[in-house]
Amino acid sequence: MSETEEIRPKESLQESLQQVVDLLNRQRLVENLVHKQDMPRHELVENLVHKQNLAELQLKLDKLHPADVAHILEALPLQDRLLVWDLVKAERDGEILLEVSDAVRETLIADMDSEELLAATENLDTDEIADLAPDLPKDVLQELMESLDAQNRARLQSALAYPEDTVGALMDFDMMTIRDDITLEVVLRYLRRLGEMPPHTDKLFVVDRDNVLKGVLPLKRLLVHDSEASVAAVMANDAVIFHPDDDAGDAAQAFERYDLVTAPVVDRQSRLVGRLTVDAVIDYIREASESDMLSMAGLREEEDLFATVWKSVQNRWTWLAVNLVTAFIASRVIGLFEGSIEKIVALAALMPIVAGVGGNSGNQTITMIVRALALGQVHISSMKKLFFKELGVSLLNGLIWGSMLGGIAFLLYHNVKLGLVMTAAMTLNLLLAALMGVAIPLTMHKFGRDPAVGSSVMITAVTDSGGFFIFLGLATLFLL
Amino acid sequence: MSETEEIRPKESLQESLQQVVDLLNRQRLVENLVHKQDMPRHELVENLVHKQNLAELQLKLDKLHPADVAHILEALPLQDRLLVWDLVKAERDGEILLEVSDAVRETLIADMDSEELLAATENLDTDEIADLAPDLPKDVLQELMESLDAQNRARLQSALAYPEDTVGALMDFDMMTIRDDITLEVVLRYLRRLGEMPPHTDKLFVVDRDNVLKGVLPLKRLLVHDSEASVAAVMANDAVIFHPDDDAGDAAQAFERYDLVTAPVVDRQSRLVGRLTVDAVIDYIREASESDMLSMAGLREEEDLFATVWKSVQNRWTWLAVNLVTAFIASRVIGLFEGSIEKIVALAALMPIVAGVGGNSGNQTITMIVRALALGQVHISSMKKLFFKELGVSLLNGLIWGSMLGGIAFLLYHNVKLGLVMTAAMTLNLLLAALMGVAIPLTMHKFGRDPAVGSSVMITAVTDSGGFFIFLGLATLFLL
Repeated sequence: MSETEEIRPKESLQESLQQVVDLLNRQRLVENLVHKQDMPRHELVENLVHKQNLAELQLKLDKLHPADVAHILEALPLQDRLLVWDLVKAERDGEILLEVSDAVRETLIADMDSEELLAATENLDTDEIADLAPDLPKDVLQELMESLDAQNRARLQSALAYPEDTVGALMDFDMMTIRDDITLEVVLRYLRRLGEMPPHTDKLFVVDRDNVLKGVLPLKRLLVHDSEASVAAVMANDAVIFHPDDDAGDAAQAFERYDLVTAPVVDRQSRLVGRLTVDAVIDYIREASESDMLSMAGLREEEDLFATVWKSVQNRWTWLAVNLVTAFIASRVIGLFEGSIEKIVALAALMPIVAGVGGNSGNQTITMIVRALALGQVHISSMKKLFFKELGVSLLNGLIWGSMLGGIAFLLYHNVKLGLVMTAAMTLNLLLAALMGVAIPLTMHKFGRDPAVGSSVMITAVTDSGGFFIFLGLATLFLL
Repeated sequence: MSETEEIRPKESLQESLQQVVDLLNRQRLVENLVHKQDMPRHELVENLVHKQNLAELQLKLDKLHPADVAHILEALPLQDRLLVWDLVKAERDGEILLEVSDAVRETLIADMDSEELLAATENLDTDEIADLAPDLPKDVLQELMESLDAQNRARLQSALAYPEDTVGALMDFDMMTIRDDITLEVVLRYLRRLGEMPPHTDKLFVVDRDNVLKGVLPLKRLLVHDSEASVAAVMANDAVIFHPDDDAGDAAQAFERYDLVTAPVVDRQSRLVGRLTVDAVIDYIREASESDMLSMAGLREEEDLFATVWKSVQNRWTWLAVNLVTAFIASRVIGLFEGSIEKIVALAALMPIVAGVGGNSGNQTITMIVRALALGQVHISSMKKLFFKELGVSLLNGLIWGSMLGGIAFLLYHNVKLGLVMTAAMTLNLLLAALMGVAIPLTMHKFGRDPAVGSSVMITAVTDSGGFFIFLGLATLFLL
């Protein structure tokens, strides 16, 4: 296919990254040479090589899609990242800032002065400015505001007012509106006169004089219907509609379920205020699932892969601190039974098994429940069934694996009662893990908290302290 | 907005679920009454109530979108699920089977005989049959195959041949093709004559006589350009193109980066073989991120929330077994130092803190690296930087938190050396956690394994055994 230039995404993206890295390495080599030789008469030559190198890199970057430049910036350590960032054409800065992750965006913006930032952002759409706003210095945002016309300023202010996880924060303002009393022929002429359409336009929004949404006209209908027909006759009036304060996660699920590309956003008076597009929804889904994954592991937020040590420590210390407290409590539980351990030192060796396997099993349960809650699949009427199922799974696992470990404990220490205590403790701790694995996320959900946040740390805390208490308690009761 | 019927997604979906559950409960109440009273002369009345109830439920279900029925089926325990499933109109079965999760689909298909399955699936598109195929009984699939024409049978066979995570398995065959030597006017007339377009059509595919892709004609261009122009003059020839054996994850990232709605899929001879749509991509992204989350926690696959205990045990036992082995190893590490613990029993109480905090910190690191690998952000040239950063974070955390815990250990047991050993062991175990948190996923990635699978179990194994060994080893060296 000679005529069609193929953009072969991932391969060429990895290749591009490789090429950029190669050019950066060559660059560094040259700089090292200059530094080492320190000979003034060489300066000219090296400067030439230097400049040629940078020019090649710049050429490479200019050819890349902004999203690909963003990807490369994210994959580079800070020093290289800023070098590449300086080479990117100023007029593309805005688009690229929109594509990089929040953490990386911070590092790029920190490298720019107010003037550069203003130049980068003044050509962006209102909804795009709103996306960048939290990271922009106040004076830049102020100046940007002043440069907007009244309608766009009002839009920016309202977009900034919506909380992060709402439709209002995701929507854009690139909607094309028409009236319902014209014919399709008029619409077609209007479009041809305009000469272009905003990205992702798959439907036109039909509004009345007061901007109240009457329906939508999918381009498909516009194309297949007789052009003499009126918009009112052809338009769909059962479109999926959102409000700006709708939950973004619910909207994303609706996009998935009803296979939407764009959808109108209306206020409580049914006036069209914006539109939601599938690309914003995909970004949201990706970010939300990543944030779930990170927060289950106890990371506060998405982290720049090459963040400074100090920034990373801050991002992680909250849950580490919580974990430290819970580990300390577990340690004190063991402290209660130091007398027993002194008498039967085998207990010290066996107790982490009870705690560890309980933690693993609890993590399996809690992950499943967190996921089901995120998908809206847990209903009050089914909670009892969920508890019973998880308890059943744990009972079975406890009896099977517990007996096996009990047997091994017996073989190691030649003590039947120790083996039995081991089996009983395993079973009980797995039951505790199941109970809390269901109860913790359900409780957090009930109180309006995100059940994913730190769930792994919490369930492990329960199964550790609980496991030690159960095992050492049973041992103290029956073995001493 | 009286004319536009609002489909208010999530709220109404949760309401629908509530209504279905209410109807099911009422149903059960009636059945219990019948059962308890056991009075034959009441039968007639109860049968009436019974039937009325079911009719109401059926009416409710008929009004719902297939995706919403699927959601409700997923949220219901097995018995209720099958009751609702029987009430769904047979001709909608196929669409709903496509929407439910794999695990739930299995339970629904197990409830249907061959005839019902055949009826449900024979009106589906070829790519949809391919999606269901792995769950269909062989005889049904065979009969379906025979009912297809030659082209569709070939398509189905090739779709079935592509591995799960490739573009070939995600693509559909709903592409509209045109030639490049006609005018837009002819295209418009052709579309009007057809009267409809497949879902998500945002572009037409321009092919030659041999079905070789020459370019794409976005509907937008079709609409805004002069209708006298030829397709060849207006079409885009820089479209993003995929091959059937491309990695689905890479394709999904390309959809995200380049904001695509549909894209052509061509074979190595540039012949058009299918198309990829954003709805298939969204489903893939959702499933892939869930599968990452589940497999990090050590669940083999997505699990029906109401799976039988036995099925759940099977889904979870692999990683539990692995964990059992690693816990046993950790226990044996402690066993090596039983002599030391006998002398200083405080060691038994303190050792889980060292292991636990190490595990938490290691999980934070490994989660971040797994995510960066999934996004293709880790480049060979940056690995050294990554190791140093994570080691730096751990060193800082180890010194801060380790000193604190060392202080507490001193206060509890009045032993300066014990405090110092505690601090040193914490620091060393956090360093080990950082090292392995980066090394494990990178190694798995290098050998072509999915770095997410069981990563949490593995890092915990290392930090447990390692933590016990470091702490008890240092204690044996310096305290005895």
